[in-house]
Amino acid sequence: MITGLTVHDVRFPTAAAGDGSDAINRGDYSATYVELTGDDGVTGSGLTFTNGRGNELTCAAVRALEHHVVGHTVEELCTFEGARTLTADVQLRWLGPEKGVIAMAAGAILNAVWDLRARRAGKPMWQLLAELPTADLLAAVDFRHISDALSRDEAAAILDKGLAEYEERLAHARDAGLPSYTTSVGWLGYPDDKVRDLTRRAVADGWTAVKMKVGGAIDDDVRRARIIRAEIGPDALLMLDANQVWDVDEAIANLGRLAEVDPYWMEEPTHADDVLGHARIQQALDTITGGRCRVATGEVAANRVIFKQLLQADAIRVMQIDACRIAGVGEVLAELLMAAKFGVPVCPHAGGVGLCEYVQHLAFFDYLRLTGSMEGRMVEYVDHLHEHFTDPVTVEHGRYRLPSRPGYSVELRPESIAEFSFPDGPAWRG
Amino acid sequence: MITGLTVHDVRFPTAAAGDGSDAINRGDYSATYVELTGDDGVTGSGLTFTNGRGNELTCAAVRALEHHVVGHTVEELCTFEGARTLTADVQLRWLGPEKGVIAMAAGAILNAVWDLRARRAGKPMWQLLAELPTADLLAAVDFRHISDALSRDEAAAILDKGLAEYEERLAHARDAGLPSYTTSVGWLGYPDDKVRDLTRRAVADGWTAVKMKVGGAIDDDVRRARIIRAEIGPDALLMLDANQVWDVDEAIANLGRLAEVDPYWMEEPTHADDVLGHARIQQALDTITGGRCRVATGEVAANRVIFKQLLQADAIRVMQIDACRIAGVGEVLAELLMAAKFGVPVCPHAGGVGLCEYVQHLAFFDYLRLTGSMEGRMVEYVDHLHEHFTDPVTVEHGRYRLPSRPGYSVELRPESIAEFSFPDGPAWRG
Repeated sequence: MITGLTVHDVRFPTAAAGDGSDAINRGDYSATYVELTGDDGVTGSGLTFTNGRGNELTCAAVRALEHHVVGHTVEELCTFEGARTLTADVQLRWLGPEKGVIAMAAGAILNAVWDLRARRAGKPMWQLLAELPTADLLAAVDFRHISDALSRDEAAAILDKGLAEYEERLAHARDAGLPSYTTSVGWLGYPDDKVRDLTRRAVADGWTAVKMKVGGAIDDDVRRARIIRAEIGPDALLMLDANQVWDVDEAIANLGRLAEVDPYWMEEPTHADDVLGHARIQQALDTITGGRCRVATGEVAANRVIFKQLLQADAIRVMQIDACRIAGVGEVLAELLMAAKFGVPVCPHAGGVGLCEYVQHLAFFDYLRLTGSMEGRMVEYVDHLHEHFTDPVTVEHGRYRLPSRPGYSVELRPESIAEFSFPDGPAWRG
Repeated sequence: MITGLTVHDVRFPTAAAGDGSDAINRGDYSATYVELTGDDGVTGSGLTFTNGRGNELTCAAVRALEHHVVGHTVEELCTFEGARTLTADVQLRWLGPEKGVIAMAAGAILNAVWDLRARRAGKPMWQLLAELPTADLLAAVDFRHISDALSRDEAAAILDKGLAEYEERLAHARDAGLPSYTTSVGWLGYPDDKVRDLTRRAVADGWTAVKMKVGGAIDDDVRRARIIRAEIGPDALLMLDANQVWDVDEAIANLGRLAEVDPYWMEEPTHADDVLGHARIQQALDTITGGRCRVATGEVAANRVIFKQLLQADAIRVMQIDACRIAGVGEVLAELLMAAKFGVPVCPHAGGVGLCEYVQHLAFFDYLRLTGSMEGRMVEYVDHLHEHFTDPVTVEHGRYRLPSRPGYSVELRPESIAEFSFPDGPAWRG
């Protein structure tokens, strides 16, 4: 039984430094941070990431959903029916549906519920998930509205196969870690010299895959891309991210110019809701690059129905799940299972606050239980704000190491909560 | 210059009566109600409709957007660049993007801005819009992310043509009013006898088009549909609305059974985000009904990009815009123009609180300036809560009459605001 829920509005003043700036966002990285208490004294932590202003809205949404959580059990809330009490509340649903503020608040809460479950089991989240019986994992997945793309039987077959190969995969994951890439070299807010220096340092640190932001003036984008390609050499991977600023035809035209730097993927080339537009862009990229460059999106995709269509329409060849924009672990499971069925690699969105901590578990689970392949899989890494977590990620030579402590790894240090609480923490006063 | 913004959390206790209940919603119809004051003392009123719980979130979102409004002019906020300061705020955007709580709050505010503009001009909103020069209307439309479906030149041609035929169309609109249909006969919360009585009364009142809710047990849906069809006779139109509860294949199977009542349209057969699913359902309906039954959706469609795809994919043959889920008049204009280009009739979503008041203006504008046709056009009508407005709709013999008072018609009576303010109004105390 869950007996208590507390929510904190925690904001880090990152906007001034230009960290995290891109074609459309310039944020103070923030967390709507949820702490649950169980009747056994075990706690659970979850958060949703926001960009500063408006974090009070996701906090208020958590409070609006609290009555579906307190007094209920972890077991019921880890089923899709339990999750639906939050995402399909007969009144709050209208504010989405299944998207935006309500979905994000549900994500913070439901992730905290799963964290509590993992802590009770004494296992890191990846391990809890990877070792659950197939029936228990299926119980968490809402097949409503995705049954035309993934049946329960298909999902069960994927999960059963993974269980059979679990020990072998685990040994490899422990040994090899998970491939990663860095997004710290090319924010739009950085001048050319800083981009060059950061890229050089990333190469020295062992990174062989880097991502840059595009979507400014196209000449500037091309110039910055050439700088980075020159620094990383021809064999390393260079990913581009336009954060949705282009129209469909504009994206196709700009990719005609950016193709010279041999991009590995083109992330968020246009509006995130535009399934048909992404499909057209992927078709054009097949022509322009002979299929070398893949369309990638997902960090703001609202729910499993959007991901379903992106897969059905062959609109993406890299699927970028987010851990807390959508309504928590059960929704992520649905998305990972669909990607596995369609054979599209998942490269989770991270950065922000706590997103690296979250998604490492999901990526290891995806490898261990669903795909057994690291081919084309990479987890985003951004070296911001990890020091505020009690169990920060470990990334060595461009690879995530398997986390070992129980839970979902997004527990904030008490002193960080106090310092950065908005508006009354010392960091925000005066 | 706008000098003041006030927001009220107004809720009407409708849930208990079963009014407005359907397959997924059971709400206390509510308004996030915005009042603006201009430096000339003229006021503007706008609202977004919510379903009860969570109305405090849209109210808080209005406050989060206030600094983009107060101190700015009506003229700048009526352009797409001005509207973007609300919908693409570099921090708040993350909470959507362009959907959910932030979009709805922006809708309430921007509609209030346009109301203020219309009051200053001394014209009802339909007239303000229908008489604006083409360039001024185009200035309000954000073509970003829809330029692959509608060019500026195509929009201009549609608007210019409408201006040339304006006087003739206006005479007809004044004379004929706008066709309408009623949704008051078949809420899921009503027993069979009440459905039969309400349908009989609707026929007596002159209604020749009625809508019922489906999405319960399919046998119940078929039984209730037969009752209504028997009452209205073979020539009246019967529309079905499933409020998104079905999976795609389930919708197709259920429509195989419901086809016997000759439905005119099938509204929200599946998840609102599922463009490809709606397209498959329309294809199936073409087979099942020989093209007689049309897929309709839009009341929770988040933005112009979703509507764009529904049109591109031939997924809908009736487009149901909403006046305040999306980010206000400019966004609606984009949607109406796309529908006009694709030749799909617009039948606005109404009901709730103030939605009939709002959309009558949009539907008259659509006729007067964009399409010049009433063929297949109907505005939803629900006979709830009109008494709380200072300029309620007039519907006679199933037709909306042209409004005559200045503004956008969603000004609430001060005594209604006081009575139903949440949580401190007399209606909610005790």
